[in-house]
Amino acid sequence: MVKVAVMGYGTVGSGVVEVIEKNKDMIQKKAGQEIEVAYILDLREFPGDPYEAKLVHDVNVIMEDPEVKIVCETMGGTGAAYKFTKAALEKGKSVCTSNKEMVAKYGPELIKTAREHACHYLFEASVGGGIPIIRPLNDSLTAEKIESITGILNGTTNYILTKMEREDKSFDVALARAQEKGYAEHNPEADVEGYDARRKIAILASLMMGKHVDSEKIPTEGITKITPADFAYAKAAGRTIKLLARAKAIGENSLEAMVSPVMLDKESPLAMVNFVYNAILVKGNMLGEAMFYGKGAGKLATASAVVSDVIDCTRNLGRKIPCDWDAQEATVEDAGNNVCAYYVRAKKSAKAALLAAFPEGEALELPDRAEDLAYFTKPMAHSAFVSACESLGDTVLGSIRLG
Amino acid sequence: MVKVAVMGYGTVGSGVVEVIEKNKDMIQKKAGQEIEVAYILDLREFPGDPYEAKLVHDVNVIMEDPEVKIVCETMGGTGAAYKFTKAALEKGKSVCTSNKEMVAKYGPELIKTAREHACHYLFEASVGGGIPIIRPLNDSLTAEKIESITGILNGTTNYILTKMEREDKSFDVALARAQEKGYAEHNPEADVEGYDARRKIAILASLMMGKHVDSEKIPTEGITKITPADFAYAKAAGRTIKLLARAKAIGENSLEAMVSPVMLDKESPLAMVNFVYNAILVKGNMLGEAMFYGKGAGKLATASAVVSDVIDCTRNLGRKIPCDWDAQEATVEDAGNNVCAYYVRAKKSAKAALLAAFPEGEALELPDRAEDLAYFTKPMAHSAFVSACESLGDTVLGSIRLG
Repeated sequence: MVKVAVMGYGTVGSGVVEVIEKNKDMIQKKAGQEIEVAYILDLREFPGDPYEAKLVHDVNVIMEDPEVKIVCETMGGTGAAYKFTKAALEKGKSVCTSNKEMVAKYGPELIKTAREHACHYLFEASVGGGIPIIRPLNDSLTAEKIESITGILNGTTNYILTKMEREDKSFDVALARAQEKGYAEHNPEADVEGYDARRKIAILASLMMGKHVDSEKIPTEGITKITPADFAYAKAAGRTIKLLARAKAIGENSLEAMVSPVMLDKESPLAMVNFVYNAILVKGNMLGEAMFYGKGAGKLATASAVVSDVIDCTRNLGRKIPCDWDAQEATVEDAGNNVCAYYVRAKKSAKAALLAAFPEGEALELPDRAEDLAYFTKPMAHSAFVSACESLGDTVLGSIRLG
Repeated sequence: MVKVAVMGYGTVGSGVVEVIEKNKDMIQKKAGQEIEVAYILDLREFPGDPYEAKLVHDVNVIMEDPEVKIVCETMGGTGAAYKFTKAALEKGKSVCTSNKEMVAKYGPELIKTAREHACHYLFEASVGGGIPIIRPLNDSLTAEKIESITGILNGTTNYILTKMEREDKSFDVALARAQEKGYAEHNPEADVEGYDARRKIAILASLMMGKHVDSEKIPTEGITKITPADFAYAKAAGRTIKLLARAKAIGENSLEAMVSPVMLDKESPLAMVNFVYNAILVKGNMLGEAMFYGKGAGKLATASAVVSDVIDCTRNLGRKIPCDWDAQEATVEDAGNNVCAYYVRAKKSAKAALLAAFPEGEALELPDRAEDLAYFTKPMAHSAFVSACESLGDTVLGSIRLG
């Protein structure tokens, strides 16, 4: 029997306990031995909770119990969670986590600490909720040079964009709907500004490069400026708008990376990912494209991914689980050099100026839109695009990358 | 260094050699040591081939070389390939294969033989080409009770159906186009009658159950009877038609399984899988749905999956790689009991009889179709559906399950 401690009895933590309980037989079969939750660490009390007897408030109870081989860190943040994770690993206890902030920031350090103490730091649940993606990258797509990874990694923004597209709603109204449904937080900044997706793509990009990609160096743009007008033009052009997180290897040590809205061709597999679903499209040099799709969040789905890591640890107690993520930092290329075609929405009066600023582009006018038009440029460097837009002044009402 | 032999220098076998050569550095990094192709077994000569020097015609050269630890079986069939696979495993050489026929038929026996000789029988490439699905089922979705697996597992039929839908072509014309493009074989029976998809769903169903599912016991219906009229009604109903391979666990030892065309709601994630792409939708009791998508065939994609198995073997020489697939057979339920709603195309004159035979259903008539109509039944047992259709005689022109 393997004893497990769960640190943080919130949504994911209580889900972990529930999954281990509900699928006990299957988990024992897959792990090769029984897995038991021995302790649940939380500062709060949970009177009447069926697992109340396992609740502890002092992390040392867990650290000092040599029978606890695996710890699930479902606290979040990089404060106490970091200290506890580091301490557990240094005691040779493997840590399985859903904490993307921690993984993005301290991934290589914690992987190294785990290795030095013959245990594991696993984080399948940190990206894409229950969608298997970390293990497929580490264990399945091993014969590939991964060329790029593109994902819809945030369910909240994807829900908002789907609502805007299908019900012709403004961003504010769609956000309010997402908040009512519990898909968006009261303070939605981390989601709608793209910061959540940025952490996740930093994790995936790091695994692609085998080197550390600093999430804070990834240029990031959220969805707050997207309007129903943009969706009207997208629809007319056979496109939709998604918040994409992208990483593309340029060389051994450098990559393009970005989080931004993209006006996607409807034929793209990512265009069909709607509502709270997430998807990750991986391009390999032999494979071509493979996509992993599912609910990117949710208590039990995320918990299931944490428990799959617990099972992996149990199968591999005392062994190595391969994970290429060195501390050496890979360089995120200057976004100004990224080449891309653009959709521009501009005042109708600016049509001639647009044609001059973006030669060979194509204008799209809709009969029910008297004031503005859409313009689709040829591929160009981002810096050149920005300059051209500046020269057009306030006749430009908005722009979105094409993909 | 690990020495590998490739048995069968056809499309996939030559792809394996190419992948190992082209991604040498990455593969060495992932495997932890260099992987070298030592022998290529084929009865044919390949004068001028860059790997001609490695060509052997006698399998014993491979069997008797103790340095060969891993064999890739890319011959196909269950004749010589079976004998060679068995012999290799009995000598403690791991076998990695793309041979779905072999895996579906002899999977549990060969897995057992491998275990008894401390080596591995791996088959990631047998389903979905380069799409990671076998390893995710064995290693990632381990905390789940898998409730069902539904896949578009045959690229040829999916290409034909996509062509029929988009270009209003008949089955025969779309098949001919697929043959011209090299997507369908001269004798297309195994694809269009669903036999290829049946083997693949048998493999996935076996992994879901942990028990053997005999592919020949899976009721199978191909796509030869689908007509442009069916697509016209599907379109009007917000649906499309796909050849689905499905398995659904009923109990510990029994399952529903089937290969058949399904008229799918356009919102289904499988509805958006077009042309030669494949996808596998896995439903777990905690996770909900996850989907794995990509090209289901192709030389390099399939070879990449074989090589990922070679890397897995190399990482796990002398260790166990978990795979639950016992020889004990799971029972495929009588298809007559399967409950499903149906689309029926019938002569317009039969409208009243349809309403009587299938109460509470819904008729759909299209202005440009004078002779027939579509009728959508409520869910009912397959046996009851068949009886009702028989009672309607030749007024029924076709039927497809709804999904």
